Amino acid sequence: MATTKPSISFEEKFAKFAERFQPKVIAQMNDYQFKLARVEGEFVWHAHENTDETFIVVDGELTIEFRDGQVSLRAGEMFVVPRGKEHKPSASAECKIILIEPAGTVNTGDAPAGELTASNDVWI
Amino acid sequence: MATTKPSISFEEKFAKFAERFQPKVIAQMNDYQFKLARVEGEFVWHAHENTDETFIVVDGELTIEFRDGQVSLRAGEMFVVPRGKEHKPSASAECKIILIEPAGTVNTGDAPAGELTASNDVWI
Repeated sequence: MATTKPSISFEEKFAKFAERFQPKVIAQMNDYQFKLARVEGEFVWHAHENTDETFIVVDGELTIEFRDGQVSLRAGEMFVVPRGKEHKPSASAECKIILIEPAGTVNTGDAPAGELTASNDVWI
Repeated sequence: MATTKPSISFEEKFAKFAERFQPKVIAQMNDYQFKLARVEGEFVWHAHENTDETFIVVDGELTIEFRDGQVSLRAGEMFVVPRGKEHKPSASAECKIILIEPAGTVNTGDAPAGELTASNDVWI
C-alpha cells in the first residue's frame, strides 16, 4: 500500500534540544551523517586528519577561524573545511548549523578530549 | 597573512542558472558533491544502485514518489533516498533543491539516458 513517508524538518529537530556544541544526528547517507548543532561562544582549535567537514548555517552567523584566515557564514551559506586544516568555530550569538561528515567523526577532532567533546552518534 | 575566505551562498548560486533538472555543483566534500537544482514538472523513474541520495529543499515543495509511497518536502526539510530504491521527483511549481551524492552520480541513475540526463560535474 502506498504510504506517506515523513520528511526530516530542521526546525522540528532543533526544537528537540538546547545544548550548545553537542551535535545530534538526524539522517545518514551511506557512511555520512547529517548532524544539527547549536553554536554559541568559542569552540576549540582542532582538525580532522582523515576527512573534510561541511558546515551549513540554518540560522544566525557562524565564524570559522583558520590559522591563515577565516570565513563567516550566515543562513543559507555553507563551507567545506578541508581535511587536516586546523579550524575553530565560534558564534557571538546562538547559531544553528548542519554538519555533514563521516559517521564516527569526533567533534573535537585531534584536540585533547575535553568538556567540549560530545558523545557521538546521538540521534534525535 | 590572514584572509577572509568566501562562503558559498545558495541564493547567489541559484541566481547563476535557470534550467530545470540540470544539477550544478557548488562544493565537494571528500568524494561527495553538493549540487543545486531547479525542479519543475515530473522527472523520470530511476534508482541509484550504488549510493543513497540526499535531497534538501531550499524553496518551494518537492514530491518524491516511490513504488510504495511518497514523501513531500518543503523548505527546510530533507530526505535520504536509500540506494537501489526507485524514485521519481516532481514539483508542480518551481522548487529549488540541494542534492548531495557521490561525485559522478548520474541524475537519471539506471534509467535509459534521455533528454533529462544532465551533464555531470558542471560547477558554478
